[in-house]
Amino acid sequence: MRINGFSKLSKKDKINWLLEKYLNNSTDAQAVLLQYWNDNEALQSLHDGFVENTLSNFYLPFAIAPNFLIDGKTYALPMVIEESSVVAAASNAAKFWSERGGFKTQILGTTKKGHVHFTYDGNIRNLLSFFRKYRAKILKNIDPLQQNMRKRGGGIKDINLIDRTDKLDNYYQIELKFDTVDSMGANFINTVLEEVADHFSLLAQDALEGNIDIVMSILSNYTPECLVRASVSCRVSELPKLDGSAEKYAQKFVRAIRIAEVETYRAVTHNKGIMNGVDAVVLATGNDFRAVEADVHAYASKSGTYSSLSHAEIVDDRFTFWVDLPLSVGTVGGLTGIHPLVKFSLQLLQNPSATQLMQMMASAGLAQNFAAINSLITHGIQQGHMKMHLNNLLNLLDATPEEKAFAIDYFKDKKIRFDDLKKILEKN
Amino acid sequence: MRINGFSKLSKKDKINWLLEKYLNNSTDAQAVLLQYWNDNEALQSLHDGFVENTLSNFYLPFAIAPNFLIDGKTYALPMVIEESSVVAAASNAAKFWSERGGFKTQILGTTKKGHVHFTYDGNIRNLLSFFRKYRAKILKNIDPLQQNMRKRGGGIKDINLIDRTDKLDNYYQIELKFDTVDSMGANFINTVLEEVADHFSLLAQDALEGNIDIVMSILSNYTPECLVRASVSCRVSELPKLDGSAEKYAQKFVRAIRIAEVETYRAVTHNKGIMNGVDAVVLATGNDFRAVEADVHAYASKSGTYSSLSHAEIVDDRFTFWVDLPLSVGTVGGLTGIHPLVKFSLQLLQNPSATQLMQMMASAGLAQNFAAINSLITHGIQQGHMKMHLNNLLNLLDATPEEKAFAIDYFKDKKIRFDDLKKILEKN
Repeated sequence: MRINGFSKLSKKDKINWLLEKYLNNSTDAQAVLLQYWNDNEALQSLHDGFVENTLSNFYLPFAIAPNFLIDGKTYALPMVIEESSVVAAASNAAKFWSERGGFKTQILGTTKKGHVHFTYDGNIRNLLSFFRKYRAKILKNIDPLQQNMRKRGGGIKDINLIDRTDKLDNYYQIELKFDTVDSMGANFINTVLEEVADHFSLLAQDALEGNIDIVMSILSNYTPECLVRASVSCRVSELPKLDGSAEKYAQKFVRAIRIAEVETYRAVTHNKGIMNGVDAVVLATGNDFRAVEADVHAYASKSGTYSSLSHAEIVDDRFTFWVDLPLSVGTVGGLTGIHPLVKFSLQLLQNPSATQLMQMMASAGLAQNFAAINSLITHGIQQGHMKMHLNNLLNLLDATPEEKAFAIDYFKDKKIRFDDLKKILEKN
Repeated sequence: MRINGFSKLSKKDKINWLLEKYLNNSTDAQAVLLQYWNDNEALQSLHDGFVENTLSNFYLPFAIAPNFLIDGKTYALPMVIEESSVVAAASNAAKFWSERGGFKTQILGTTKKGHVHFTYDGNIRNLLSFFRKYRAKILKNIDPLQQNMRKRGGGIKDINLIDRTDKLDNYYQIELKFDTVDSMGANFINTVLEEVADHFSLLAQDALEGNIDIVMSILSNYTPECLVRASVSCRVSELPKLDGSAEKYAQKFVRAIRIAEVETYRAVTHNKGIMNGVDAVVLATGNDFRAVEADVHAYASKSGTYSSLSHAEIVDDRFTFWVDLPLSVGTVGGLTGIHPLVKFSLQLLQNPSATQLMQMMASAGLAQNFAAINSLITHGIQQGHMKMHLNNLLNLLDATPEEKAFAIDYFKDKKIRFDDLKKILEKN
């Protein structure tokens, strides 16, 4: 089923080719694609243009978790996520903490980095003195590129030569630090870096003995210095009770966090739960979840052992629970100005700055984590999860409205298992 | 803007509440939400039921990357992704390698783990002998839960007691290993673990001195033993040329990979690029990208330093490039049987098994990584990326069809920068 020029075909011809080659010309399959097209042609055309070879729109649920009290203001967070029970869990945790002071956040930094990675086979002292000599000239040459960013309060913060020959023969970096204000900044950073590389290698050809070979110039998605902390705190007595004791609940909660701090098998799932909350807001606001995920999980491994991103403690009868997350996100640029539902999300959030959005995302992550630990240390996660998932299972079995009502009533006080559900509805 | 009982409101009342409290009753904002509703009420109701508090459908582009030759068969991969240039890059890389033998894959394991995390304050020897004595009984007690999974060829593979007191006082685990065949298996694993915990603690109350306290029971999203390798290989002379030399290209390619192996700042971005390809297929097939992301990035840090997931070498004039990815995904269960476009994706992929889907995802990741490194070591990434992004920028500026044609022609042989685009179109 090789094909040349697929991207040149019209959307309809692309679909026809797929139907013929892979789907036995199934009209049902065709109908599935077409039923998701928007009637508004201009709107559909906008969405078709976001990426290449688009055939249809993939629906993810656009949902709302209200009652997020963050630094004194209450938000309704837009969440885009396909997993059942995440939005309900976020909403419940948000409500719980809104009655106990809400989420408090702190921006611990906004610096992002990018690198020109290169090799140099000459004397390192010559390289260092060359860089010292031409550093200002390079910065001046690329200055026009940062005029607009500077007007917005950002730009290039620093530029340094780094010797990495301990890691790889002849390997050096020019490292630039950036503040990209309200944009995620990938295009700005990459454009600057490519120009720096051009100027650097041109100047080096004249003024430096030995060969400079630029391997690549690219931003880093690792941003441990673009960091936000979100926390919640209350008296231990304000926590839920476990076997009648809030003290017991607090201690078990902290123990669950300790386990995620010391055990990678647990930490991965623990942090995955945090990211359920973070990514739902990342998607709803048109940010890039692959960049956020890579950043956050690399940060979780910074000690040398992959570990929990959240922490908890009880000090003087006060319970505190917090998370530190590197988050490089934007509220301008990328899809933020183009995707109508992303624009809606940002309006709903009162048009936040990038740092405010970091604060909201971290709060969503902490809320999610609180809800998960709360379930795990009390009734387990299956009870709540399967209750939320029951509707999906009923749809899977093509249950009638009557069967749905019967099943929901039947499982009110029982553990939900798919096999049992099939049995009571007499389905195979 | 606190609210009680938000989840109990109808969809319309939820929207009205948001409009009133956060959006100045804007009819424009309301129209944005409504324009994405599907005319087919049953279909819309299905999507509304996936998660809680849904208001609308968030469109992500559903696109196709054809010409993926994987283990001798050519697939058209469904990709759901909002980032421009990813689908084009995957398609180009797939085509390139389809003419050089295609992707070869290998399943290196399918084992997943889950744990009952507990504390025990008694003598460890007593605990060990208790577990040895009751191990078989526990397995027998929970056996009914795995009847269906066993019919499909999976089930519980092992159960062991693990001493983790070196990490945390009194901390132990019951570790279970699972094969969940074509399902991701989260519900199955969690159900089994919660039952194991119940039986274990009940038996321990009678037969063991000292206190057992179950902290939590949950699957691990970390699956280093559920692993797939994808590779491509060709003679060096079959590679593109750099300064007229394929040899030079190969060496620079390998050097770029080495840098990602030794430098975390580079590795994070490098792996993010791999995940652009993987996640697009994860989303299109209804799998959970947060689980996949956490798994993969923790795996990237397993040596103690966060590092590249892909590797490359030149041996005897042969270039080989490969990636190892832990991927716990399913082709049954979850959304796979419910989301119509997910069902379409699986049909398009010829209804793969979970291991076949792992092979496709790993190939998509490797293709993406090849395309990224290829761009980085040749013309840089901005040229291609901005070309693909130009359409989005034109939409952002509300460009007319004439202006679009003019701009596309203007930038044919120039670097695209947003500021320049605004200038030539005389927009602010």
